[in-house]
Amino acid sequence: MSDIRTLESPAPVAGVRLATAAAGIRKVGKVDLCVIEIVPGARTAGVFTRNVFCAAPVIIAREHLNTHSPRLLVINSGNANAGNGQQGFLDARKVCASAASLLPCGMAEVLPFSTGVIGQQLDSAKIVNVLPAILAALSETQWDEASRAIMTTDTVPKCVSAQATVAGRLVTVTGIAKGAGMIKPNMATMLAFVATDAAIRQSDLQGLLQAVVDRTFNRITIDGDTSTNDSCILISTGDLRSATVQPGTPDWHTLAALIEHVGRELARAIVRDGEGATKLVTVRVSGGISESECLKAAYAVAESPLVKTALFASDPNWGRILAAVGRSGVAELRMESIGIALNDYPIIAGGEPVSSYDEAVSARIMAGSEFDIRISIGERPTCVEVLTCDFSFDYVRINAEYRS
Amino acid sequence: MSDIRTLESPAPVAGVRLATAAAGIRKVGKVDLCVIEIVPGARTAGVFTRNVFCAAPVIIAREHLNTHSPRLLVINSGNANAGNGQQGFLDARKVCASAASLLPCGMAEVLPFSTGVIGQQLDSAKIVNVLPAILAALSETQWDEASRAIMTTDTVPKCVSAQATVAGRLVTVTGIAKGAGMIKPNMATMLAFVATDAAIRQSDLQGLLQAVVDRTFNRITIDGDTSTNDSCILISTGDLRSATVQPGTPDWHTLAALIEHVGRELARAIVRDGEGATKLVTVRVSGGISESECLKAAYAVAESPLVKTALFASDPNWGRILAAVGRSGVAELRMESIGIALNDYPIIAGGEPVSSYDEAVSARIMAGSEFDIRISIGERPTCVEVLTCDFSFDYVRINAEYRS
Repeated sequence: MSDIRTLESPAPVAGVRLATAAAGIRKVGKVDLCVIEIVPGARTAGVFTRNVFCAAPVIIAREHLNTHSPRLLVINSGNANAGNGQQGFLDARKVCASAASLLPCGMAEVLPFSTGVIGQQLDSAKIVNVLPAILAALSETQWDEASRAIMTTDTVPKCVSAQATVAGRLVTVTGIAKGAGMIKPNMATMLAFVATDAAIRQSDLQGLLQAVVDRTFNRITIDGDTSTNDSCILISTGDLRSATVQPGTPDWHTLAALIEHVGRELARAIVRDGEGATKLVTVRVSGGISESECLKAAYAVAESPLVKTALFASDPNWGRILAAVGRSGVAELRMESIGIALNDYPIIAGGEPVSSYDEAVSARIMAGSEFDIRISIGERPTCVEVLTCDFSFDYVRINAEYRS
Repeated sequence: MSDIRTLESPAPVAGVRLATAAAGIRKVGKVDLCVIEIVPGARTAGVFTRNVFCAAPVIIAREHLNTHSPRLLVINSGNANAGNGQQGFLDARKVCASAASLLPCGMAEVLPFSTGVIGQQLDSAKIVNVLPAILAALSETQWDEASRAIMTTDTVPKCVSAQATVAGRLVTVTGIAKGAGMIKPNMATMLAFVATDAAIRQSDLQGLLQAVVDRTFNRITIDGDTSTNDSCILISTGDLRSATVQPGTPDWHTLAALIEHVGRELARAIVRDGEGATKLVTVRVSGGISESECLKAAYAVAESPLVKTALFASDPNWGRILAAVGRSGVAELRMESIGIALNDYPIIAGGEPVSSYDEAVSARIMAGSEFDIRISIGERPTCVEVLTCDFSFDYVRINAEYRS
């Protein structure tokens, strides 16, 4: 992994062009539309939310991706086009049909994505109106602009680009993502689009994306609310005739690590910019009888409003961590196996308070902007990490004022 | 149920005496200790938290209750005596032993209860010091004082008293409870003590309490955090030789309704006084394939931070309700079966937005201090209700400042 180089500014990915526009979906003048054009012959994989009431564009994007190689992604912010009944499907299909006639390509080669308020009809005409201009402006160098166009309550754009040498060739992975609320991804985060110029076969791409997502975007939570619109897309544009990367080889390992690196940095950026968040906290749980048991404890802590308000206050009120683990439903939990530490500073060991514990040390650790809560629940060699953030006045303000 | 009369001020329960004192557990001068003396021959039942890391006093109270009929309950606020390792047990037992020698009674006839901060050693000497004075001050008329002594972050005391005629005799049920955070009771709420002068056999009392708790205290949530100290006690003092109430009779039905009425009013009082709460909201879910499936959806909505901040803002952002149901894991969920209403005002019916829907009407309903969110997830004759409250700036303030 030491040969992965994170770039200061996003590198283009040959075969991927982007453009943005202000379509007036929510506020006049805000850039709220982004298109991503994919070169013919590229491979694209996607994972989507498991929320049963997923948005119309999610259902359509999944359908199209199942049967066709996409040529165009059309992404709007400001309106999720979710909960809109049959009208929502009509609007999303209008956007696809219009974009397809302009590119031109087949309608099923266009994937629609939406993010924003749920339950307000999407004015698809506003998108259709700007499609000719936006398609005329495509270029390989607009990743940063694209990362801004998909923002909703995000306060900073999220764009990560990294390179590594794979099979003697410099490979680029560039991706964008957006948060910042209704975030407990289940199969993918709110919206993330990642592309590489490495050559990966279609049959390998979906498994790779799923593996990366399970270790990155699926291990974060801001408020425990899985969105209706979560989607994560991975594009591979490299020419399959020249330098295909094969699963199981050292090159595959390097490439997978590179893509996971970009996914993890985007996931961290989402949590760091969680609604109202002032801290990025890693909850690490080890020793449970299985990974899924460890995850139960980790999410109970990472989503507890009492833990999260204590994080905001830098208050080492570790009783709340203990109580959350105790109610998490983890199998075979015994007090005498419990350890709790902040970074490597122990608070509880073997179920007993550590006698040398000094609350001032804990408070200093918690005053930092990034730290770990490390919890041991047994002796097994299991370990999971979940990223979370604190729960502040601003979380309430942002979500009480979101639509006003 | 029409013959249940709720009283303005708490009626004494013959055979139950109470007293309170300021023991200095947390703040000097605050009344933080309460004892409840039970007449010999009375029957007492209890349900306790299912949090695996329950507090030392919970473990001891459960042990004592399993083998003995209690004569004395000793309850302190300001310190939960949870997470304190072996020292926590020593302190709770010291309190029991000292109280027993003073009453006098057997040590196992004393039940200890604690509520407050987790993870700080309980200074049992402070309690032991005031026991002689508090035991000298017992009287039947101090229910109101007792309800104040057990408060922590509660802003109002919670005491409910009601009467009904059972078997030709006026029966009294009087109870006290405390919230106000770490509230998602699992078998009981934080602390509740209910007594009746009706004559119920020990063998009937536990089942009655469990049934009442499952329909009242176990259907509320403030922050989803099940406490380490939840306990609910039901005492029956009536003379078994005179007028025992038998399960299955009309009198039993009346008595059970009376006790459930007191439990429900205490549970509602806890949610109404939830930390930072400005609204009491009933989430009613009907039509699922089982009660437990309905409860999954109800708790997903009742605990969603996004729903709860929208409640605070009186913002009818019903997309958040839909999204929470969609991620709740309910079996056989289909969009076309979904209905959402505020009180009886419909928003979604048959999975489609109601065309006549007027957001101003919803906003007016949500501006009230009590209303229902009614969700239909299918056609079955199931129905559950969960009580919740909104999520305000004050929730964050209270929990960020709790220990400072």
